[in-house]
Amino acid sequence: MTRLVENPVERVRAAYRRIAEVDRPEVWITLRDEREVLAEAAGARPGLPLAGLVCAVKDNIDVAGLPTTAACPAFAYTPARSATAVRRLTDAGAIVLGKTNLDQFATGLVGTRSPYGAVRHAEQPEKISGGSSSGSAVAVALGIVDFALGTDTAGSGRVPAALHGIVGLKPTLGLVPTTGVVPAARPYDCVSVFAPNLALGQRALAVLTGPDPADPASRDWPASARFAPAAAPAVAVPSPAGLEPLSPWACATFKDTVKRLRTNGVRVSEVDFGVFLNAGRLLYEGALVAERYAAVGEFIETHRADADPTVAGIILAAGTLPAHRLAADQARLARWRAVAAEALAGFDALLLPTTTGHPTIAEVAADPVGVNSRLGTYTTFVNLLDLAAVAVPAGRADGSPFGVSVITRAFDDHVALDVAALLVDVKGATGEVCTRAPRDPVSGSPA
Amino acid sequence: MTRLVENPVERVRAAYRRIAEVDRPEVWITLRDEREVLAEAAGARPGLPLAGLVCAVKDNIDVAGLPTTAACPAFAYTPARSATAVRRLTDAGAIVLGKTNLDQFATGLVGTRSPYGAVRHAEQPEKISGGSSSGSAVAVALGIVDFALGTDTAGSGRVPAALHGIVGLKPTLGLVPTTGVVPAARPYDCVSVFAPNLALGQRALAVLTGPDPADPASRDWPASARFAPAAAPAVAVPSPAGLEPLSPWACATFKDTVKRLRTNGVRVSEVDFGVFLNAGRLLYEGALVAERYAAVGEFIETHRADADPTVAGIILAAGTLPAHRLAADQARLARWRAVAAEALAGFDALLLPTTTGHPTIAEVAADPVGVNSRLGTYTTFVNLLDLAAVAVPAGRADGSPFGVSVITRAFDDHVALDVAALLVDVKGATGEVCTRAPRDPVSGSPA
Repeated sequence: MTRLVENPVERVRAAYRRIAEVDRPEVWITLRDEREVLAEAAGARPGLPLAGLVCAVKDNIDVAGLPTTAACPAFAYTPARSATAVRRLTDAGAIVLGKTNLDQFATGLVGTRSPYGAVRHAEQPEKISGGSSSGSAVAVALGIVDFALGTDTAGSGRVPAALHGIVGLKPTLGLVPTTGVVPAARPYDCVSVFAPNLALGQRALAVLTGPDPADPASRDWPASARFAPAAAPAVAVPSPAGLEPLSPWACATFKDTVKRLRTNGVRVSEVDFGVFLNAGRLLYEGALVAERYAAVGEFIETHRADADPTVAGIILAAGTLPAHRLAADQARLARWRAVAAEALAGFDALLLPTTTGHPTIAEVAADPVGVNSRLGTYTTFVNLLDLAAVAVPAGRADGSPFGVSVITRAFDDHVALDVAALLVDVKGATGEVCTRAPRDPVSGSPA
Repeated sequence: MTRLVENPVERVRAAYRRIAEVDRPEVWITLRDEREVLAEAAGARPGLPLAGLVCAVKDNIDVAGLPTTAACPAFAYTPARSATAVRRLTDAGAIVLGKTNLDQFATGLVGTRSPYGAVRHAEQPEKISGGSSSGSAVAVALGIVDFALGTDTAGSGRVPAALHGIVGLKPTLGLVPTTGVVPAARPYDCVSVFAPNLALGQRALAVLTGPDPADPASRDWPASARFAPAAAPAVAVPSPAGLEPLSPWACATFKDTVKRLRTNGVRVSEVDFGVFLNAGRLLYEGALVAERYAAVGEFIETHRADADPTVAGIILAAGTLPAHRLAADQARLARWRAVAAEALAGFDALLLPTTTGHPTIAEVAADPVGVNSRLGTYTTFVNLLDLAAVAVPAGRADGSPFGVSVITRAFDDHVALDVAALLVDVKGATGEVCTRAPRDPVSGSPA
């Protein structure tokens, strides 16, 4: 679908033309100088797996020589070394254009919690982009870059993908090392990929995965990992109660998607969504949120004026939680992981809406925590329960792109990609989804 | 070495004779009525793997129909169902005689922290038995039972083994399910086995391991588990600084053991013990101790008068720790696990003294926390770093049995057993170690 340009210099020129054309300065926290990037492109080694591709990196992931701000200017430092994930991309020939805006310290699903400006939605500027990986998602949706790195703890790599009709790959925890990534809630953090389509996303993911001696939480593919698709995959969907957070239009669109899956040979059955929902609530309503204080709480204590007030409120409140409640919630989570595994036994994947709706920036300003929380209904539990997810476009609802997520057990990332491919390959599915992306990366015009 | 009696009725009679003979009532919290146990023995199915063996169970592990007290009378409840570990033993033909005394809530390495009485050492009653699995270790050391279950979080399954010249098997976390075990510090708890020799211990362990759907932390042997011994195992030992906590006699005895290993074809090299020591300190000096509050803190808050003062002091202090410190210590531990794995790379096992000395009950009373902490120098880090250990006798020092532990990576339990066998098989090693055990289980006289 996307025509890949094999001349890196031409590709970089096209990207900067597109940046000028779209006039969305809030997407970037640091945009590299075009001449410097062109010089890098001119010296690029051909034949590498990602040669000729340009990308953007969320600004909580280190790129050597560029400041890492995590959307907090006072927090900024300039790393000498790139994050392992970034190094793997550039070693594979990808060219980094710059660092993208985010909800500060990756705390949020809205894309508005940043002193660098709220990131507006690519096609409806009065609405949110989704977050926390707001700038990376919009850079892909606007056809500036071929793919972008996000991070995803509670849905930050999937919600903005859904709102833009692009693809968001949230790999199994640990498969992509987090060395050089500012922690958000360390045990549940992962690096994610945004792309206009599954093929480009998979190309990037292929070079990103694999253990890293510097990251004790990194994990290798187990010997038992499934790389082959099931002949007739069995997919679980929520029972009607699990779809109540959706608007009637979104609900109908989700049901259409399920129907398309059935038509495509997938066996579909309903499961009770309750255990997943409860696990999701535990991230913010329980003591697990103390991980956010452990990550940046001390910094915020001493730099309150520099922090986004909503973000600071969430993180500082987590500083007073007692340790025994965290221990108890971790034990609860371990039991729920077992219950969730039981609920998914016999299924290859779980299909869910990716998010609940598309709020305006004004709606978020009026109720920053409530709106944010609803957006995470279908995403927050995924990392807590050690699952993998692929978010793909699935038509439109209520005037915005609508997305679904294919969720699998840990290390079944390729199963998720296979089931997701069944969705977007169905005639008419992807093409209708997004008016802005994918684009021809050279001309910037819709492909 | 131990003559196994295949007639369960005879075996039970001998056990009760021995109980009367040794007159150590503090070993038991609940001893079953002899007639009831004889009736069970008379109906026993022959041919089972543990047929004809009698055992004792630490009183923080459920046995259906017997109270579980965790050495706190006010905490007592009578479970309808046995712990998974106990059910596996009885399904394999073993007969449970009763429930043994322990440091309350398994918090201690001394064996004195119990309202049911300090458990005196089997051969030197003025000295400690070691804990927390004090009663189980002494029941084995006195030749009452063929093996006994303990639990081991910080060394409770190894320290009392070392002090009695018996064997203590501390399996990889999760290999023996903890369903039906009162948690101490849940993520680091495991069920352990005491036995007079490796063969009996291994017989019990063989039926105990394997996953349990009711225990989300239970783990199966991985496909890559090593069951075969290395031809010439490579064993790490601490550099001289790591032996400083030992008396000159104990140090000499440890060095003799290393020499015997070398003579027996083992390649021995020194490693820096620092990372292991630091990890061990984290259990009590950091925030991980909040796990103990999560386990029984609320109970102790409302039953302070019923709790051992030292135990209550440790657990209640852990109730005020902040959650973000627990999160930070868990992250630190994850890094140390990686550093420890690096330190052990190229080795099959690490050989250490099991404990530092053999205090009197009076010495513990004078400094209950300090003495306890020293006893755990070589044991506390093992579960924190997800390692397995086998504690075996290695001669005597300062008038008491002296023990060493063979420590391996998780799931290398059989490697630990193989290396341990090299130690006790060396001529003259085990025989000299313990004057009380193993005994002929029928006559009660030294074998």
